[in-house]
Amino acid sequence: MSDELKKGLEDVLVAESDLSFIDGDAGKLVYCGYAIEDLARTASYEEVLYLLWHGDLPTRSELDAFRADMASHREIDDDVLALVENLAAADADPMAALRTAASALSAHDDTAGGSDPDDARESGKRITAKLPTIVAAFTRLRNGDDVVAPRDDLGHAANFLYMLNGEAPDDVLADVFDQALVLHADHGLNASTFSGMVTASTLADVHAAVTSAIGTLSGSLHGGANANVMRMLKEVDDSDKDPLSWVQDALANGERVMGFGHRVYNVKDPRAHILSERSEELGAAAGDTKWYEMSVAIEDYMADEKGLAPNVDFYSASTYYQMGIPVDIYTPIFAMSRVGGWVGHVLEQYDDNRLIRPRARYVGAEDRDSTPLDER
Amino acid sequence: MSDELKKGLEDVLVAESDLSFIDGDAGKLVYCGYAIEDLARTASYEEVLYLLWHGDLPTRSELDAFRADMASHREIDDDVLALVENLAAADADPMAALRTAASALSAHDDTAGGSDPDDARESGKRITAKLPTIVAAFTRLRNGDDVVAPRDDLGHAANFLYMLNGEAPDDVLADVFDQALVLHADHGLNASTFSGMVTASTLADVHAAVTSAIGTLSGSLHGGANANVMRMLKEVDDSDKDPLSWVQDALANGERVMGFGHRVYNVKDPRAHILSERSEELGAAAGDTKWYEMSVAIEDYMADEKGLAPNVDFYSASTYYQMGIPVDIYTPIFAMSRVGGWVGHVLEQYDDNRLIRPRARYVGAEDRDSTPLDER
Repeated sequence: MSDELKKGLEDVLVAESDLSFIDGDAGKLVYCGYAIEDLARTASYEEVLYLLWHGDLPTRSELDAFRADMASHREIDDDVLALVENLAAADADPMAALRTAASALSAHDDTAGGSDPDDARESGKRITAKLPTIVAAFTRLRNGDDVVAPRDDLGHAANFLYMLNGEAPDDVLADVFDQALVLHADHGLNASTFSGMVTASTLADVHAAVTSAIGTLSGSLHGGANANVMRMLKEVDDSDKDPLSWVQDALANGERVMGFGHRVYNVKDPRAHILSERSEELGAAAGDTKWYEMSVAIEDYMADEKGLAPNVDFYSASTYYQMGIPVDIYTPIFAMSRVGGWVGHVLEQYDDNRLIRPRARYVGAEDRDSTPLDER
Repeated sequence: MSDELKKGLEDVLVAESDLSFIDGDAGKLVYCGYAIEDLARTASYEEVLYLLWHGDLPTRSELDAFRADMASHREIDDDVLALVENLAAADADPMAALRTAASALSAHDDTAGGSDPDDARESGKRITAKLPTIVAAFTRLRNGDDVVAPRDDLGHAANFLYMLNGEAPDDVLADVFDQALVLHADHGLNASTFSGMVTASTLADVHAAVTSAIGTLSGSLHGGANANVMRMLKEVDDSDKDPLSWVQDALANGERVMGFGHRVYNVKDPRAHILSERSEELGAAAGDTKWYEMSVAIEDYMADEKGLAPNVDFYSASTYYQMGIPVDIYTPIFAMSRVGGWVGHVLEQYDDNRLIRPRARYVGAEDRDSTPLDER
């Protein structure tokens, strides 16, 4: 046993994976051999899911079958819908609601309960198909709106926007949202993915693993960051300061500027490159690029003064905001995408499983004698 | 970055902890400086919870206040009870039901949602108080029995047996059950505890962390093992073989004998020592020690022939069985106890947090060019 403490497991290799490769110095992200820029331009989210779960991009007929199959699993059981209604009525945190409802899916899924590879892939596909239905239903119900049932003639991204807004999106919005799902689908052993692998390593099922991953994603140091970026941008907008003075004052007050820096990247996140273009396009189409310009001003300042580059959260914030998506749904949307990677890594874990069980260095009290209660 | 692959994180130190110390060669387990044998003899589960969350055993007045406080949090919200009813009606797996209902608690807990130390300890206490209520309600409802509301004049262990069976246990049963909770309360960075820490490391809340841990505990390589031991013992009993021939045949057929071996212990688990005594006592009191004797015969054979010692699951199985507890509730009971350790380690994680984010070695395809869909 090495005596070295590896608190964040930084740079510790805990698995071999076929799924994604990250070059943090070159700003490069690759899924199964394909550069993220290529996939973002040419592949839909369903194609990326197929890639992550089967190792290759689908042919036309494989994709048609896969899409139809996923679309057939979008509906959620009445019990789960009743649970979502209760969670919305209780004004639950959206990520807590998603975690709870996703966990509840297993009671209505005959593929739940084990680590058989075929069952596990099937469970993963069904969960992925249903998460948007949960997020959209929760969002509408808490606003007092009726739930909109899924449509099986729309793609995964467009159907979510349809269920969320009650009308089908135009092609631009559907495409931007699909691309955002592609960009967030996998990213090596980030904390949520790793928590799903730890769960799966006991041979707990995919539902358990995805539930763990949703909970882990909810933290402010991980998936919660995109919503916090938007809260910050709105604070800048609400202030009477220009973005530069706001950031300077925030840094002077020891506050953290959201959306910068990443455990893995030392340069600009390649996903932020793509999303910044979409953020600009959306602003231009709406005739107001203020969120994009504010973001760029902050990016430039942070690069020049702090040597920090924006991460994926920084530009997903203004992209989602300009699509009219409520800020506290950004992290559930992140989950709707990253579930592709969670399932992929869990399948790899089952395929060559070893229980993940590290150790702690004991630094507590030594050799105490138990004193009876009344003598303490 | 080291190139060495640490797949199970075996012997990797990922934290410093004041909570438990394990000497796997000496068969020694210590909570906060107290040998487990001492605590099992002299301390109740509530005292152990206080120890794990505050660092010292409570005085009489501290314990009285802590017990009353915990007892006041045993009731679950009507929404959560309705959820448990639906899960029981759907014949959900008991661990999936516990995971889902525990996750749902956060919507009704004003301390949920952050990593503030005081809120986190309070959340942990409330969850710990409520898990037995969920398990008992689920077990009764799926049998068509009415839910039994908690009683605040009973200890944590006795109240659970009261809610499960509809009558207060005698002192022996309450004491055995309390001791079983003490023995399972913490055990270093086992997989469920570690998954809770990974979740908490993003600053996700205690509800998220405990939900992850329950899911992780459900696997057959972790908490699921105690139920599998009992299923094996019943199979031995139902066969026309004596235990020795059954085990010999099972091993000859390449089957695994449940309840032996442990990542950390190389000798008999100290918890198994204590539980084997309680298993024998329960058998003697009932006038039939067959489960105990069967267990001992298997233990002796495995030690002589395989050099393997029993783990905690091996004797908890016959102990719970002789208490009349349904076999598939053994793992939820493990969760009702281990939640003490989960909360303790999550509090330590918040206290000196670092995001837990390891890496994978990429071994997948390289440099593929994305071919348009219709040319694949």
